[in-house]
Amino acid sequence: MQVYKWEEMPTRDGATNPSYKLEWDRFNRKTTSEYLQWQTKLVSEYKRKDQFTTHCFNMIWIFPNSSFDQVEISKTMEIASLNVYHDTQSGMMGHGIAMGGDFTRSFKNGNYLVTETNAQATDFGNASNQNPPYEGQFRLNAWHHIASGANMVEYWHWHSNHNGNEMFWKGILSHDLKPNRLYKEFQKTALEINRISPSVVNHQKKSEVAILYSSDTHFGNESMDPGYNYDWEILRMHKSLYKNNISVDFVYPENNNFSNYKLIVIPSIFVASDALLSKLVSYVKNGGYVIIGPRSGYCNEFMGARYTDQPGGLSQLCGITYQETTKIQALSLKENPFNIKQETNKIEAWFELLNPTTATPLAYPDHKEYGKYPVIVSNNFGKGKAIYQGSILTDELQEAIILDACKQVGIYELQKNLQFPIIQKNSINANGKPIHFYLNYSDEVKVVKNVFGKATDLISETVIQNNGSFTLSPWGVAILEEK
Amino acid sequence: MQVYKWEEMPTRDGATNPSYKLEWDRFNRKTTSEYLQWQTKLVSEYKRKDQFTTHCFNMIWIFPNSSFDQVEISKTMEIASLNVYHDTQSGMMGHGIAMGGDFTRSFKNGNYLVTETNAQATDFGNASNQNPPYEGQFRLNAWHHIASGANMVEYWHWHSNHNGNEMFWKGILSHDLKPNRLYKEFQKTALEINRISPSVVNHQKKSEVAILYSSDTHFGNESMDPGYNYDWEILRMHKSLYKNNISVDFVYPENNNFSNYKLIVIPSIFVASDALLSKLVSYVKNGGYVIIGPRSGYCNEFMGARYTDQPGGLSQLCGITYQETTKIQALSLKENPFNIKQETNKIEAWFELLNPTTATPLAYPDHKEYGKYPVIVSNNFGKGKAIYQGSILTDELQEAIILDACKQVGIYELQKNLQFPIIQKNSINANGKPIHFYLNYSDEVKVVKNVFGKATDLISETVIQNNGSFTLSPWGVAILEEK
Amino acid sequence: MQVYKWEEMPTRDGATNPSYKLEWDRFNRKTTSEYLQWQTKLVSEYKRKDQFTTHCFNMIWIFPNSSFDQVEISKTMEIASLNVYHDTQSGMMGHGIAMGGDFTRSFKNGNYLVTETNAQATDFGNASNQNPPYEGQFRLNAWHHIASGANMVEYWHWHSNHNGNEMFWKGILSHDLKPNRLYKEFQKTALEINRISPSVVNHQKKSEVAILYSSDTHFGNESMDPGYNYDWEILRMHKSLYKNNISVDFVYPENNNFSNYKLIVIPSIFVASDALLSKLVSYVKNGGYVIIGPRSGYCNEFMGARYTDQPGGLSQLCGITYQETTKIQALSLKENPFNIKQETNKIEAWFELLNPTTATPLAYPDHKEYGKYPVIVSNNFGKGKAIYQGSILTDELQEAIILDACKQVGIYELQKNLQFPIIQKNSINANGKPIHFYLNYSDEVKVVKNVFGKATDLISETVIQNNGSFTLSPWGVAILEEK
Repeated sequence: MQVYKWEEMPTRDGATNPSYKLEWDRFNRKTTSEYLQWQTKLVSEYKRKDQFTTHCFNMIWIFPNSSFDQVEISKTMEIASLNVYHDTQSGMMGHGIAMGGDFTRSFKNGNYLVTETNAQATDFGNASNQNPPYEGQFRLNAWHHIASGANMVEYWHWHSNHNGNEMFWKGILSHDLKPNRLYKEFQKTALEINRISPSVVNHQKKSEVAILYSSDTHFGNESMDPGYNYDWEILRMHKSLYKNNISVDFVYPENNNFSNYKLIVIPSIFVASDALLSKLVSYVKNGGYVIIGPRSGYCNEFMGARYTDQPGGLSQLCGITYQETTKIQALSLKENPFNIKQETNKIEAWFELLNPTTATPLAYPDHKEYGKYPVIVSNNFGKGKAIYQGSILTDELQEAIILDACKQVGIYELQKNLQFPIIQKNSINANGKPIHFYLNYSDEVKVVKNVFGKATDLISETVIQNNGSFTLSPWGVAILEEK
Repeated sequence: MQVYKWEEMPTRDGATNPSYKLEWDRFNRKTTSEYLQWQTKLVSEYKRKDQFTTHCFNMIWIFPNSSFDQVEISKTMEIASLNVYHDTQSGMMGHGIAMGGDFTRSFKNGNYLVTETNAQATDFGNASNQNPPYEGQFRLNAWHHIASGANMVEYWHWHSNHNGNEMFWKGILSHDLKPNRLYKEFQKTALEINRISPSVVNHQKKSEVAILYSSDTHFGNESMDPGYNYDWEILRMHKSLYKNNISVDFVYPENNNFSNYKLIVIPSIFVASDALLSKLVSYVKNGGYVIIGPRSGYCNEFMGARYTDQPGGLSQLCGITYQETTKIQALSLKENPFNIKQETNKIEAWFELLNPTTATPLAYPDHKEYGKYPVIVSNNFGKGKAIYQGSILTDELQEAIILDACKQVGIYELQKNLQFPIIQKNSINANGKPIHFYLNYSDEVKVVKNVFGKATDLISETVIQNNGSFTLSPWGVAILEEK
Repeated sequence: MQVYKWEEMPTRDGATNPSYKLEWDRFNRKTTSEYLQWQTKLVSEYKRKDQFTTHCFNMIWIFPNSSFDQVEISKTMEIASLNVYHDTQSGMMGHGIAMGGDFTRSFKNGNYLVTETNAQATDFGNASNQNPPYEGQFRLNAWHHIASGANMVEYWHWHSNHNGNEMFWKGILSHDLKPNRLYKEFQKTALEINRISPSVVNHQKKSEVAILYSSDTHFGNESMDPGYNYDWEILRMHKSLYKNNISVDFVYPENNNFSNYKLIVIPSIFVASDALLSKLVSYVKNGGYVIIGPRSGYCNEFMGARYTDQPGGLSQLCGITYQETTKIQALSLKENPFNIKQETNKIEAWFELLNPTTATPLAYPDHKEYGKYPVIVSNNFGKGKAIYQGSILTDELQEAIILDACKQVGIYELQKNLQFPIIQKNSINANGKPIHFYLNYSDEVKVVKNVFGKATDLISETVIQNNGSFTLSPWGVAILEEK
C-alpha cells in the first residue's frame, strides 16, 4: 500500500472533546465554502462568456487537516479541477489517477480538468524521492486522466523552478531549459492527443456502483482513534473496483441520487444523521444493494452514541444487533467462505460481536472466546440486500465480497471484465459512439481480445474485429472506437 | 511485560538541572498535599458521622508527571481508595490489581475501596483497544480486589457515556442500556458477594515482606536518564513476590515500621537522605534482611552526589565500594549461580564495577574487560544480611534472588506456596477465622490441595478436608474459611 | 557507523524557503564572527605577552544548528582549540580524534590545543551510556591527539561534578575524590608525555591531500532534504584516508592554497559560487586531481539552481551533463569495476543519469530502466584529472576510489602504508627530525616493520633498525624518532 503519497492520519488528542472537534471542523468547512462562493460570485460578475471558474483541488479531501468541503464549494463553479500527484516507476498502478478522477468527476457529475500532476519528478528533496517516469509512463498517465473524464491535463509545471521550496518538483523542462528525455515523450503525447482529441473530448462515463464518502466520518474518526484509517478503507474499496475495471462514482450524504446506482459501497458511516440512515434504508427497501462497513450508524451527526440497537439506524436493514467490540491481532476466518488464498483470509484490528436477528452469517472469526459471533453477514431487506462487515478486512477479502456483490447485481462479467494490470474504461464519446480505453499498467507486452463490436484503435488507426486481438506494449495504450 | 497499561517514562531534558527539578517536584507534591488536607478539613466540619472522606487515587503514583504524594494526602482521610485499570482477555495476569491493592492498602495500613476499575471495556478509541473480559474474568477480578483488601468494588461506570472522550470507556451497560453479556456476569458476581460478604468484609492481611518506594528516586531518575525505569523495577520485584504468593506491603522513606518486616526489598534509592540510609543500616544491624538495587545512596536528598565511598551511606552495610559504571548490551553471568534457564541468566543496560571489602561475591558478569568485578554480592552485617545488585536483572534472575531470600527468612515453603497462574491470598476475617482466597488466572481447570485445616469453600458451600482437593474452573475462584 | 557521537541531522521544514534559510544561517555566522572578533580585540588590549586567545570549539562544525564559522572566528585568535568527545571500549577507532584534529589544525594551518575530551566516562545519564575506557585506551588517545598536532591535552574535568546536569560526565576523579583505575593511567601517561615532550611538541605535519568543506553546502542541504547527510559524506571520505594512514588537511571555499595539494576530495558542493567553481577548474587545468561528489555546482551561492548544464560550472571539467536524478534502494554496480567485495559494490539513495561528453565511464548502475547511464566517470582535463561520482557510495566503494586516486598521484605506497587498526602518522619535530607515531587501535598485539631509517622509540627508548621490527601491545603506542 506504500504506493500512495497520502500521509498517515494523526491520531486523537486525549484532551479533545470529539463532538466539539467535529463541530469545529464543520464550521471551518462552512466558512471556507461561503468565502469561496462569495469570491466566485465576485469573479463571475466580471468574467467573459468564454471564461469559467474552477478550483485547483488538491487531493486534500483525503488529508486530515483540510478545512473545506469540495462538494459544497464546487456548486458555484462551472468546472471541477483536480491536482493529483502519484506513484511512478516500477509498480506504478495508476490507482491515484483513477481515485482522484472518480472523486472529482463526482463533484459536479461531469468531466473535469487536471490542473496539476507529475511532470519530470516530484518532491522537495534536492535529490531524494526524485521519481522520473519510465519510458511510456508519462504518456500512459496522460491517457488515463482522459479516460477517467479529464478534458485537459496540465502539468506542474512548464520548466523547473530555479528557486524556492519546489526547485526539485520538476517541470517538463529541467533547470537547463533544454529538451530532455521527458520533453520528447511530452511532445509525442501532445501531438497524439491533438490528433485524437475530437473523438474523446467530453466523453460521458456512466457508473452503476457508487462509494459513499462522509466528511463527518473522516473527521469524527480522526478525533477518536478508531484503530483503522477511514480514508484507507475508502481506498481499499475503490481499489477492489479499480482492479476489476468496474466503473465507480462517489456519492455524498447530501446526495439524492442513490437510486441511480445498483450497488452502494460504504466503508463506514460512524457519524451519520437519521436522514442519511433513512435514505439508505429506503434505497435497499426499494431494491438497492449495499455493502456496509463497521461502526456505521454508531453516532448521530453530533457524534453522540445512539441509544438504539447497534448498528444505529441500520440494525433492521442489516438484520443484526451488537453490544461489544474486541481488539485482535490479524485473525483468520473459520473455513474460507470466499475461496481466497488462505493467508489473506483474515480480519484485522478488532471485530464487533454480531448477534444476527434476520441476517445470514457469511463468515465467523477463528477466535477461541468470541468465535461464535459472525463477523460478516448478509440480509435480504425489502426488495434489496445488505452485506454488513463487522471488522477490517484484508484487500483480498474485501475485493472478493465486492466482486461477489457486483456479480449478483449483474455488473461484472468474467468474460468481459479485464483485470489489473490492464485497466479498461468504457464511455460514450461526443459523437455518441462507444469508446474503450485500454491502459497497460505493466512493463510487459499484453495481448487483449476485443469483446466489443468492430472498432478502430484511434492510436494505431487500425481496425479491430469483434473477438479480434490487439497488442499493448509495455505501459502502452489503445483506444477503441466502435463503428 | 506488555500486559501493563502504565506508560513509558519520558526521558531527561538536557537543559534541566536535576536538583532544581527534584525540588520543583517536591514543592508541587507538598502544595497538593496541603491543599487537599485543607479541603478535607473543610469537608469534615460538615459531614455526618456515618460519612467519610476518601480520594480516588488513580494508579498515578507510577506515572512520571504526577505531582502529589498519596502517602501524605491519605493521612487526613479516613479511607484510601484505588482507581485501577488492567489487562484482560488471554494472558490476563491480575498483577495490576495486586500491585494497586498492595500499594493502596499500605497508605493507611488498612483496607481500602476500589472506586474505579474495568467494566465492559476500556480505552478512548471508538473500536481499537476494546478489551471485553472473557467469561469469568470479571468475577475473578472482583474477588481478587476483595482478596487484596478491598471493602468495595465500584465500576467506571454504570452505563457507557453517550458523549465525549470516554464514550468507549464502556460501563456495565452498553450505549443501548439493555442487559448484555457482562451485565449477566455482574449480576451473578454481585449476588455472590452479597451472600459471602459477612465472612470476608474487612478481613485483615498481614505481610512479612515490604518493598521500599521512594518518590524522590522516581523523580530523580526521571530527570537523569538512568538507562532503566525505576517504576519497572518496582513492578519487577513486586511480580517476583506476586507470582509466588508471598504477601507484600509497601513502606516509604518516612515510615518507622521497617522492623515489622523480615525482608525489605529496595529496587533503588538513588536519592536518599542520611536519615533513611541510617534507618536501613539499623534495620539490618538488628537482624533485618535487605535486597538493595543499584545506584542506591548515590545522591543525597538534594540530588548531590555523595563525596563518600559508593554506594553512599550503604558501603559498609553492603561490604563494597565502587567508582565506575559501564554500559552493556544484555550480558550473561559467568556460570549460573542461581540455577535458572541459561537464556535468562543475564544482566542488562549497565553494571557497576564492585570492589568487595567484606562482601561475598555471588555472581560475576561475563565481560572481557571488567569481568573481574562481581555484580551481585551478599554481606552479613550485624545480626542481619544485605544482598546488593549492581545492575539490572532479568525477571527470572530477580525472582530467583528474592525467592532465595524469602526461603532464608522462612517465609516461603515449597510445600505450601502455590504459584502463578494460581494466586492464593491468606487473611483473617472479622470473625477471627483464617480465610484463603484461590484465584485461577488461567483458562484451564486446576486441581488444588488444601494445605490448611478443614475448611468450607464459601463459594460452593462445600467442605474441604485438610489435604483434600478441590477444583478451580477456568478463571475460577474458591474462598476457604477454616473451621 | 554508530561509533560516532554526532547526531543525525533534522530534515527540511516544508514551509521554509531554502534560499532565505541559507542567508539567515550566513547572517548568523557572520554576526557571531564579528562579535567574537570584537571580544578578542578587547581582550587582546589587556593580555600579557605570554598570554594568548583561543576558543573551545566543540566539534559543532558538524552539528546542524551551529551558527558560527570557525574558520572566520579563528582568524583573530592566536591558537585554535578543539573540544572533542569520542567512542571508547571495544570497537574504538580513534576516527573522531583524527577528524577533529585534522579539521582544527586546518583553521590556522598549525598546531592546536585539546581543551576538552573524554576522562573517565561521558554522558548525562546517571548510569546509562557510561563508557570508561579499557586499560590503555586513555593513554593511546592522549598520544593520538599529540600525533594529530595537539600541543596540549586537557580533560573535562579534574573531578566529577557533584551537582547538575553533568554529574555523570565524569572527570579524572570520581565523586569520592580518591585515586582510581583511570587516575593511575592518567599519572602514567602524564609522566610519559612530560618525559618525551621536548621531542614531539610543535611537530609539523604536512598533508598532500585535502578535503573541501563547505558550510554553505552543509546548511543548504539541511533545508533541502537531500536524501543523504553531507557531514556523513565528509566523514566517509575522511575515514577512507584515515584508515589508510594518508595525511589530510581541510580546505575551505575561501582558501587560495588548493595548489599545495596533489588531490582534493569534495564530498559535494551543492551550494557554490562561480568563483569557487572557477578555482577548482583552474586547479585541475594546472595539474590538480579532484574527486567530486554528486549535486556539486547545482546551485549558486544564493541557492538558485544554475541555468547551465549540470553539474553547474563543472560540466566541462567532469566531461558530463545530466538532467535527471532517480531514487533507488541500494543498487549493485554492473560488474565490479573496483574489485571490492560484491556485497559492498553498491550505490545508495539515488543516482544522477549522467551523459558523458568527454568523460570515460568507470561504473554503471545495475538498473533495469536507467542502467545505460554511467554513475562514476573519469575525465582528463588540462594537465589534471577529475573523478565524478553521481550517487552515494558504500564506505568500501568510496575507499577504493580514493585509494586509486592516491596511488595515481603517488601518495600511497602499498609497501609503506600501514592500515587500520594500526594508525601511523608522520611528522617533523622541532629539532627537524622525522618522527613517526604508531597507534594500535585494537586489543591484539601487533608486530610492525620500520620502513623508515634507523630510529629510537621514544616510549621504550629502544633503537629500531631500518627494516627492523617492533611490537605494539593492545591499545599500545610507539613513537619513532629517526636518527
